[in-house]
Amino acid sequence: MIGIAIVGYGYWGPNLARNFARLPGVQIAAIADPDPVRQAAAARDHPAARVGADVENTIVGAEIDAVVVATPPSHHRTIALAALSANKHVLIEKPFTTSVAAAHEVVAAADAAGCALMVDHTFVYAPAVEVLVSSIQGGDIGDVIYVESTRTNLARFDAAIGVLRDLAIHDFAILDRIFAAVPRIASVRARRPVGDEPEDFAFVALDYAGVPVHLHVDCLSPVKIRRMIVGGARGVVVYDDIEAIEKIRIFQRGRGATLSDLRTGYRDGPVLSPPIPPIEPLARVAVHFVACIRTGATPLTDGRSALRILATTEAAEDAMSPHLNRAMLGR
Amino acid sequence: MIGIAIVGYGYWGPNLARNFARLPGVQIAAIADPDPVRQAAAARDHPAARVGADVENTIVGAEIDAVVVATPPSHHRTIALAALSANKHVLIEKPFTTSVAAAHEVVAAADAAGCALMVDHTFVYAPAVEVLVSSIQGGDIGDVIYVESTRTNLARFDAAIGVLRDLAIHDFAILDRIFAAVPRIASVRARRPVGDEPEDFAFVALDYAGVPVHLHVDCLSPVKIRRMIVGGARGVVVYDDIEAIEKIRIFQRGRGATLSDLRTGYRDGPVLSPPIPPIEPLARVAVHFVACIRTGATPLTDGRSALRILATTEAAEDAMSPHLNRAMLGR
Amino acid sequence: MIGIAIVGYGYWGPNLARNFARLPGVQIAAIADPDPVRQAAAARDHPAARVGADVENTIVGAEIDAVVVATPPSHHRTIALAALSANKHVLIEKPFTTSVAAAHEVVAAADAAGCALMVDHTFVYAPAVEVLVSSIQGGDIGDVIYVESTRTNLARFDAAIGVLRDLAIHDFAILDRIFAAVPRIASVRARRPVGDEPEDFAFVALDYAGVPVHLHVDCLSPVKIRRMIVGGARGVVVYDDIEAIEKIRIFQRGRGATLSDLRTGYRDGPVLSPPIPPIEPLARVAVHFVACIRTGATPLTDGRSALRILATTEAAEDAMSPHLNRAMLGR
Amino acid sequence: MIGIAIVGYGYWGPNLARNFARLPGVQIAAIADPDPVRQAAAARDHPAARVGADVENTIVGAEIDAVVVATPPSHHRTIALAALSANKHVLIEKPFTTSVAAAHEVVAAADAAGCALMVDHTFVYAPAVEVLVSSIQGGDIGDVIYVESTRTNLARFDAAIGVLRDLAIHDFAILDRIFAAVPRIASVRARRPVGDEPEDFAFVALDYAGVPVHLHVDCLSPVKIRRMIVGGARGVVVYDDIEAIEKIRIFQRGRGATLSDLRTGYRDGPVLSPPIPPIEPLARVAVHFVACIRTGATPLTDGRSALRILATTEAAEDAMSPHLNRAMLGR
Repeated sequence: MIGIAIVGYGYWGPNLARNFARLPGVQIAAIADPDPVRQAAAARDHPAARVGADVENTIVGAEIDAVVVATPPSHHRTIALAALSANKHVLIEKPFTTSVAAAHEVVAAADAAGCALMVDHTFVYAPAVEVLVSSIQGGDIGDVIYVESTRTNLARFDAAIGVLRDLAIHDFAILDRIFAAVPRIASVRARRPVGDEPEDFAFVALDYAGVPVHLHVDCLSPVKIRRMIVGGARGVVVYDDIEAIEKIRIFQRGRGATLSDLRTGYRDGPVLSPPIPPIEPLARVAVHFVACIRTGATPLTDGRSALRILATTEAAEDAMSPHLNRAMLGR
Repeated sequence: MIGIAIVGYGYWGPNLARNFARLPGVQIAAIADPDPVRQAAAARDHPAARVGADVENTIVGAEIDAVVVATPPSHHRTIALAALSANKHVLIEKPFTTSVAAAHEVVAAADAAGCALMVDHTFVYAPAVEVLVSSIQGGDIGDVIYVESTRTNLARFDAAIGVLRDLAIHDFAILDRIFAAVPRIASVRARRPVGDEPEDFAFVALDYAGVPVHLHVDCLSPVKIRRMIVGGARGVVVYDDIEAIEKIRIFQRGRGATLSDLRTGYRDGPVLSPPIPPIEPLARVAVHFVACIRTGATPLTDGRSALRILATTEAAEDAMSPHLNRAMLGR
Repeated sequence: MIGIAIVGYGYWGPNLARNFARLPGVQIAAIADPDPVRQAAAARDHPAARVGADVENTIVGAEIDAVVVATPPSHHRTIALAALSANKHVLIEKPFTTSVAAAHEVVAAADAAGCALMVDHTFVYAPAVEVLVSSIQGGDIGDVIYVESTRTNLARFDAAIGVLRDLAIHDFAILDRIFAAVPRIASVRARRPVGDEPEDFAFVALDYAGVPVHLHVDCLSPVKIRRMIVGGARGVVVYDDIEAIEKIRIFQRGRGATLSDLRTGYRDGPVLSPPIPPIEPLARVAVHFVACIRTGATPLTDGRSALRILATTEAAEDAMSPHLNRAMLGR
Repeated sequence: MIGIAIVGYGYWGPNLARNFARLPGVQIAAIADPDPVRQAAAARDHPAARVGADVENTIVGAEIDAVVVATPPSHHRTIALAALSANKHVLIEKPFTTSVAAAHEVVAAADAAGCALMVDHTFVYAPAVEVLVSSIQGGDIGDVIYVESTRTNLARFDAAIGVLRDLAIHDFAILDRIFAAVPRIASVRARRPVGDEPEDFAFVALDYAGVPVHLHVDCLSPVKIRRMIVGGARGVVVYDDIEAIEKIRIFQRGRGATLSDLRTGYRDGPVLSPPIPPIEPLARVAVHFVACIRTGATPLTDGRSALRILATTEAAEDAMSPHLNRAMLGR
């Protein structure tokens, strides 16, 4: 039996707890939150769990194998370090930490403890993203030549953070699954709509080991687009998350097609849209974390990956920041 | 009666001649081409026209009001200058000239002669492009904030020129209709597939007076995309040339929508797809050139516009060229 | 203050209760369910409500103005009649009753009591359906000439009832909003996949006062389609529920277009996609029922409408039933 | 060398002649048309051909192996019978003949002569149709359960004939490729817009050996739809001719999927869009006719097939005709 402690029972904590509680051989052993109302909810939802305000106590119990950190980001570092020093495996809600330095510290602690460290970049566990990454890594399109992504929202949901942290971070996470690297930031061209508000639009030009990437993020658009195009030497994958069924389409050049065929307009290859299993991303997060605990495997979104995503986000913000007072700026 | 001389009767010349011949009050008075086979075709298609090999003679005739230059580009400058010095109006098949310097010369000659000078950027006369430009200029989406365009072909049709001259030039021409300016080239990230071949893929980052533009052109793609997204302060226009009917869609923010509405997810505006008149672009080219001759109006794609398009193309190539030996390069 | 009694707290009852509880001036006064576990859930969710097993007592209380019936269908008639005889307004979860005869009885009782009687055909309250119906009734497409609907599911969720009761009933409800009539059943061509199972596919041909209607329902399809095309004298409305944004598109013939224009290929009209307010259908059900109680207005889906929908469903089943033993049959 | 005689050089004759002239081992030996202007065009386009007005002479020449009949339909029977009695192979432009009786006569004559008889139902030779039929006949979707087709035009091109002969005939031809049978006409519900004009809209319900088929044809619609859905026991094929690339999409149920999987919402199968070779249908018509002459194979659209298509068209018109004076009618 794997005992889980949930730290933080606000918005995301209950979702994580519910998904872990469903798994065989897993038990929500303890829940910590400073708010009495949330404690009551935790007690109601998970009657067998020890519930209280004391994080430290919650973490160190012998029945606890893993700690799930779902507090505000400013607490992530402290709680994660405490859990790792008690030799507990750790799952942290995204964003990993509030700084790259803190992220390095937590990664080092996990290495020292020999514990699993995973960051809940839920989006990466969407089945369509898994199919996208598998297709690329399975060689369907050959070497990757470029990536182009457009991600626009109908409305801004969180005015406190800019579109880079709100939307582009999802692209950074997907790209990290593909390239497992920190890109060079070629340019960030962004817009701040009014006064002190953070940026609500950006064109981000990245370079992953020679592969050019263009991101377009916009959080105040009247049209919703969620489309990533990955071009390769042998084909193109289009990931359109708005599509109901054909979220992933793989366009292949015909195997027998010669360059001459291509030049005369003959496209020999089929278009394939693989099935997307109807599984909740968060359910996959819980299953994967437990599997990593049991087998010792490295999580897909381990601390190193989360650190790279965080470093990319910070670098993109830095590339933009000197210009933040002008209406529309390029580096 | 407006008398037209056609110079060059290879691939595009006959198309231009046919479209002019249909117009009331217009007559194909002369056709010049050095090739006897083409002369025979010209005589058959336009029995009333004087047909021969001598360009100079063809141009200067008193019955000639305008000269249509449809020769290989290397001859454009010489023929245009000769026609303008004889006070004839001039329509030149794209590309305008082979260098920016030559283009300046021809523009100056047209100014001196007081004659109409138009370049046949046929694509600009596509009805959908006209509707796109009208929508933007009519204020449907407010101030333009960004432009993003993806233009991929199923196959390369002309291996002799790169994708910038083959495909991106269409975007440069449309953007010139919108901005009437030469952009700053922020970066050109391109690929040369093999050996000495010209580039077959490029991400082009432009800046039109502070408006960031991203172009994606690819001439050897297994998927055909022709999509331009123009984001504005009040809405977004999407131009998808693959769509059978709704080539232009205008997404507007609701007029009454407050920022608070937007933040809580309420999108008030409708999506409008204006009708696209089913008119051939080349027919519009002919009608427009004749109208400019008659009224003295400046052509939409006049010499200055064509010069800007050419300057943009050259600058984009220069931004790319130092790196042409590496597989995939950014400036 | 309007006092609501909820009868039945299984799957749909809690959803209805939650939506009513949110409305100002409305209170969940009582909840009845025979199951102790459900009673506990009801008490937890609505601490101020009287909770028990006794339906009769629950209904007649003086603090009860309206009764929401969310029991299995076999109880609908009895509970509705009891509530109406106590002069309570009644909202019944669909399907209205298990027979047309019972439906007539309940409608008559509501008339006699002078109380509001509404059936929760939730689907009709989807904002896109409201926009569809408004567009038609507002004259956007002129007189209706035909309706064609395709509704296929990726999987069957309820094997106990056939595709007519499972899926076609949604079309019957939408069509009743448009035509407010019982159609003539022209033919029902259906399929029973195996043994005693109910039909999983049907083509249904209806006639609403001379307007031909074709329905295609399929509950075991590998492709999900939710598309209704309403053709009119002046335009066509396409309702595609799979579309993320443009669920409703109105194709109009150009106002100035003559028949001659149409014949020569010129389509003058725009395509308009009106905004779809992001409101939950069930929230609209609750708001509408309360508004009808307060104003005395007739509900959009009143007893008469529900009776027509039920009568249509039964007639469609009868048109099919004599053939149920053959693999694929037409009447 | 196969010698071809073209009879009729109006609209379609030149297209057929051009496609045959391109084939190796084929020669346009003679062209007949009563109109001197068309004779001149024929002589210019095919200088080696004997050109004249005399049909009988044209047909019987020893250098003629096959006769292509591209005259108005009222002449088809006479010319075809003359050609067959001279032992020439015959290709007839659609529609085959003006009556089912005449069609029987021509089929019998071809049988007696042992000559190839093919009708140019060009549409059937569209590569997408070929891919559709191959997919069905190759078992991709298992046994066919239903066919649903919507075919609407933006404008009517030929007011002289109704929508059944103008549009539905294409569906009849495709369906004949699939079923090779004359269907039972279940009902035809059509509209005549004004006065004496032929029908411009119809819902046609057919039954091909127990498989229900629904056709929707409309020739005065503001939206263009060309979509056929073929449902089968193991999958669904969607043919959307408006799509630029993915004209054919095959949705398969997962091979390993149990009924239980299907019921719980799990769709295991991929969506495949096979490549559509970019070949002109008319070029395929010419190639196929010549191949049938050389090999003795039966044409895909032989006389028997064309006869069935004609019989279906007539039966559909008969099913509609008694009602033609009413605005909207069902049988």
